[in-house]
Amino acid sequence: MPEKKLRVDFMAMTPDALSLIYAAFRQCYHAGFVADMWPKLLSGEIDPQVQADFVSKTMESGHDSPIEHVSMTFAVEGISRACSHQIVRHRIASYSQQSQRYVAENDMEYILPPAIAKIPEARERFESFMAEVQSAYTDLRDILVAHGRKSKANEDARFVLPQAAETKIVMTMNCRSLHHFFHLRCCNRAQWEVRAVADRMLAICKDKLPAIFANGGARCEQLGYCPESPKFACGKYPVRENLA
Amino acid sequence: MPEKKLRVDFMAMTPDALSLIYAAFRQCYHAGFVADMWPKLLSGEIDPQVQADFVSKTMESGHDSPIEHVSMTFAVEGISRACSHQIVRHRIASYSQQSQRYVAENDMEYILPPAIAKIPEARERFESFMAEVQSAYTDLRDILVAHGRKSKANEDARFVLPQAAETKIVMTMNCRSLHHFFHLRCCNRAQWEVRAVADRMLAICKDKLPAIFANGGARCEQLGYCPESPKFACGKYPVRENLA
Amino acid sequence: MPEKKLRVDFMAMTPDALSLIYAAFRQCYHAGFVADMWPKLLSGEIDPQVQADFVSKTMESGHDSPIEHVSMTFAVEGISRACSHQIVRHRIASYSQQSQRYVAENDMEYILPPAIAKIPEARERFESFMAEVQSAYTDLRDILVAHGRKSKANEDARFVLPQAAETKIVMTMNCRSLHHFFHLRCCNRAQWEVRAVADRMLAICKDKLPAIFANGGARCEQLGYCPESPKFACGKYPVRENLA
Amino acid sequence: MPEKKLRVDFMAMTPDALSLIYAAFRQCYHAGFVADMWPKLLSGEIDPQVQADFVSKTMESGHDSPIEHVSMTFAVEGISRACSHQIVRHRIASYSQQSQRYVAENDMEYILPPAIAKIPEARERFESFMAEVQSAYTDLRDILVAHGRKSKANEDARFVLPQAAETKIVMTMNCRSLHHFFHLRCCNRAQWEVRAVADRMLAICKDKLPAIFANGGARCEQLGYCPESPKFACGKYPVRENLA
Repeated sequence: MPEKKLRVDFMAMTPDALSLIYAAFRQCYHAGFVADMWPKLLSGEIDPQVQADFVSKTMESGHDSPIEHVSMTFAVEGISRACSHQIVRHRIASYSQQSQRYVAENDMEYILPPAIAKIPEARERFESFMAEVQSAYTDLRDILVAHGRKSKANEDARFVLPQAAETKIVMTMNCRSLHHFFHLRCCNRAQWEVRAVADRMLAICKDKLPAIFANGGARCEQLGYCPESPKFACGKYPVRENLA
Repeated sequence: MPEKKLRVDFMAMTPDALSLIYAAFRQCYHAGFVADMWPKLLSGEIDPQVQADFVSKTMESGHDSPIEHVSMTFAVEGISRACSHQIVRHRIASYSQQSQRYVAENDMEYILPPAIAKIPEARERFESFMAEVQSAYTDLRDILVAHGRKSKANEDARFVLPQAAETKIVMTMNCRSLHHFFHLRCCNRAQWEVRAVADRMLAICKDKLPAIFANGGARCEQLGYCPESPKFACGKYPVRENLA
Repeated sequence: MPEKKLRVDFMAMTPDALSLIYAAFRQCYHAGFVADMWPKLLSGEIDPQVQADFVSKTMESGHDSPIEHVSMTFAVEGISRACSHQIVRHRIASYSQQSQRYVAENDMEYILPPAIAKIPEARERFESFMAEVQSAYTDLRDILVAHGRKSKANEDARFVLPQAAETKIVMTMNCRSLHHFFHLRCCNRAQWEVRAVADRMLAICKDKLPAIFANGGARCEQLGYCPESPKFACGKYPVRENLA
Repeated sequence: MPEKKLRVDFMAMTPDALSLIYAAFRQCYHAGFVADMWPKLLSGEIDPQVQADFVSKTMESGHDSPIEHVSMTFAVEGISRACSHQIVRHRIASYSQQSQRYVAENDMEYILPPAIAKIPEARERFESFMAEVQSAYTDLRDILVAHGRKSKANEDARFVLPQAAETKIVMTMNCRSLHHFFHLRCCNRAQWEVRAVADRMLAICKDKLPAIFANGGARCEQLGYCPESPKFACGKYPVRENLA
């Protein structure tokens, strides 16, 4: 019944990612077949910096569909069900999430919101409640099993599990969808938890594929201003009205 | 803090739905322009039964993309967060869901699983726990507000809310996506709650657009056999191995 | 074998569209169930102008997913296969297109590009070539039929049909996808033909649902500046670098 | 102006594909975090055959979403514009296609349908027509350039290019979308050209990832019967009515 911390692990990325994106961009404008150019891309005969520069420049002009050819897969643990519910609303993505129907929560772990952690009184109330949750879950499971509902006991007992209950998820998004995810979820207006997930994913993306994610993040990072209405702006960048 | 019952309301459907689907099918194979045929479809000069028969026959041959032109919108209340989390995994759909960040749960309603409702001991345990939830939520909100976290109090206090917490959602799916939803969620293997939602939606669909949904439902309803492996089959239809 | 002109017909829109979008927006932030508010929305008891203002304001703050609940269906004729190939690249949409496999082109109609129409010499060359196309198509069909390939004669003879060959398509997009379509295709950098289609669709959308489409169109119409790099900018709006 | 033959090149696949799919499946039902199991999967400490068997069995029970985590990228040349128009109708995929607006067709290559190739009279008519196409394209480009339309000359001249005109495309699909593609396009009812593309892609998939694609192909390959109506059945498998 302990608190669980966020962990975001990189699992996989389409190989030769930059070259693949470069090849896809080139195929749009090139008379030849990029498969013929592919060995030169892989061998480095075509300088990776040249590839990166070409891709950056073309993306700046608004043509970003070729970055879809590369996908990234992450394994995430230490997030609440509240957070996973937000994540799976992103529809251009693939998810495999731990099931509360199949996995019993005999030792439920939970996410402790930082604002609650900082206030001793709140933290105490929260933690004592988590103990009550575990007890209610176990009691209900036992009762259901005792009444011959063994195969469905998890499924029904989980109704008492909190939004704070920890979950794990494997998620795959292509680079274009990742950029969109970061636009929304790295914004200071996003909820703290999904923002923490997005920030970790973005750091991995910047590390693995800098040519594509160098200026990734909330919309303001690309725009140079905040697209929100002034009353919601966080102040990191000026709002558009104050640009000039 | 009462129990809340499922309610599925029909909100909207693309108008002249059968004619629209018929027109879309016809456009694929017809030399003329269906917009020229449209007035005759709307006036009934082309018999609706003829339209329905044509559509059914073409769908049977596996050509079902034209039914995507018609969408249905439902408003659903009285479902748990566990259930809504399952629903929004269907990605070819649009959702607007009540936010626990914006709406305070001062009088939280909840979903009581039928299997728990039937066992007095379980029901009592469940209901007394729901009272504890309300109390923990209110306490945490108060503490957060007292510590100057008013604007984020809902957002963090909701971590104690249970999967059972009632939610409301407006959802739109096109007919092809609806059929897929019913294939998975009307199956007896689906969880009871999402199956109840799917069954209500299917009843509305059959009523509003019988030509498209007459044989809607779990896969077995169209196949005439159960596509699951024998150990999971519910027995309503024979499994494929036992067909002959 | 005549030239064919563009025609874009409105076929259907989700009924009570503004109210449906308003209801979906409200459900996100509202404690009650929007289905209970629905009759008041339909009766006008809640002023449509209030609904429109609420929706516009919320969209401006970047929350636009509820407009997905409303879809529009158009029937388009008088476009080339080149144009339809561009249109169907928009993936959040549904299409039913006239098949060249099923429909014989015994009197092929074609699209004449305006730039060619304006130069007599070019127009003459184009039109005489279209006559050659018809003749090649008919010859090939006849040969294939004479060699016992009747059922596949259209399918193979159509390989000689030009990109200019006229096609017809029924298309459905939700309002969010429509906005995206207009962002790209109403831009002066888009190809003239798909821009003409997009402009007609936009005019219909503005007429049918002004609260949602009032400032629809190319990105610049919402941004107040051109997001393209300076060398591609058309001049209608200043580029971002020149904003201040 | 020569004929061009189909070529389908494998470009990329998500690395450690089987293990990634296995890990995603396991995360759904497993109490632990698959990232902790990942090194054992990569090192082979968990036998690849065990992984393959687990995945096959789970897929058979109808749970196939985890195979979405793996994508394949192909480069295709030697297909007609007719064929690419069919391919891009598959919406759960990413495409980068050679542009006829940017690439001049000074030496247009084309696809010769096999049925036409087999009939000398048809072949001759087809080939002489392709020469006419090249001549019309070049004439129109020259006229447009002479009239000051250089930058748009390709864009407008291409209206005379035939459906047979060769195109090149880079395409990425995840494994679930690939299976769907094969269901439709490997069927003997599919058009010969897109079927040839699908067959090549399937052969690559079977080679690269046999655990996922062993029984890939048209629907009949999984079902053991033909799901088409009897009048369209090719005879490779019995239709359902004749199963027993």
